[in-house]
Amino acid sequence: MTADDEIMAIALEEARLAAAAGEVPAGCVIVDIPSGEILARAHNRTETLHRPTAHAEILAIEEAARRRGNWRIVDSALYVTKEPCPMCAGAIILARCSRVVWGVADPKRGGASVFDMFAHPGVNHHPAVQGGVMEKQCLEVLQTFFKTRRKSK
Amino acid sequence: MTADDEIMAIALEEARLAAAAGEVPAGCVIVDIPSGEILARAHNRTETLHRPTAHAEILAIEEAARRRGNWRIVDSALYVTKEPCPMCAGAIILARCSRVVWGVADPKRGGASVFDMFAHPGVNHHPAVQGGVMEKQCLEVLQTFFKTRRKSK
Repeated sequence: MTADDEIMAIALEEARLAAAAGEVPAGCVIVDIPSGEILARAHNRTETLHRPTAHAEILAIEEAARRRGNWRIVDSALYVTKEPCPMCAGAIILARCSRVVWGVADPKRGGASVFDMFAHPGVNHHPAVQGGVMEKQCLEVLQTFFKTRRKSK
Repeated sequence: MTADDEIMAIALEEARLAAAAGEVPAGCVIVDIPSGEILARAHNRTETLHRPTAHAEILAIEEAARRRGNWRIVDSALYVTKEPCPMCAGAIILARCSRVVWGVADPKRGGASVFDMFAHPGVNHHPAVQGGVMEKQCLEVLQTFFKTRRKSK
């Protein structure tokens, strides 16, 4: 396991907590790059909180900013099991995260895949980006969730 | 004053509250379209809350969803003094707002101006969009804020 894999494994634990609560399974971890300390971990809670903005990344960014006492969480790396949606990609850019790592790409709805948001000349911060970390496991969590949900309908 | 102007005037009151608190002045109102009732009003509180996601639109969407008890705030119109950024545009789409109305466009950083997010074939919900409502007043609030801030530096 690489260092990125180890952190993604924690994001996967969060994704499984989401699935267990009937939420689309996405999990997120934010790490303070200088110390390696975990600043925040969270999973999708849209349904539970009746909150369209309660994606894993948003909740983790809010927690990390609270801990830092600053809305700019510079020198941080955000790990998420699924490529961020445009809302979350926008929040990552606003929050000045230095690096974004995801498991599964989202070619249909992803902020990077659809809008190239992290590299776009029209945004004022360009985090380093890496996809495909523990891709197989991240995909499996999603597929299992949607298979079970289809069966129960 | 048109009906849209009247609601934007309330969003402007919110923007002025933001400015008074030292926040970039943006204000937002969400209206339940069938009844005309105001579901939520909010202003930017990024600095106050140490929360990069605390834009006026996000706070208003969260409040409206809480009141509805549903994260999908269908049949709603969102009024905001400044064109939504990509994060907020993403949230508006996720929340299924029916209509988005803004005062001043943001050609450099706006989710519509830069990414055409509300009309993009890659998103699964396309709200009706209208810009330029009470544009002069909305612009003035921003210009006054930034002029004052430059002087105090």
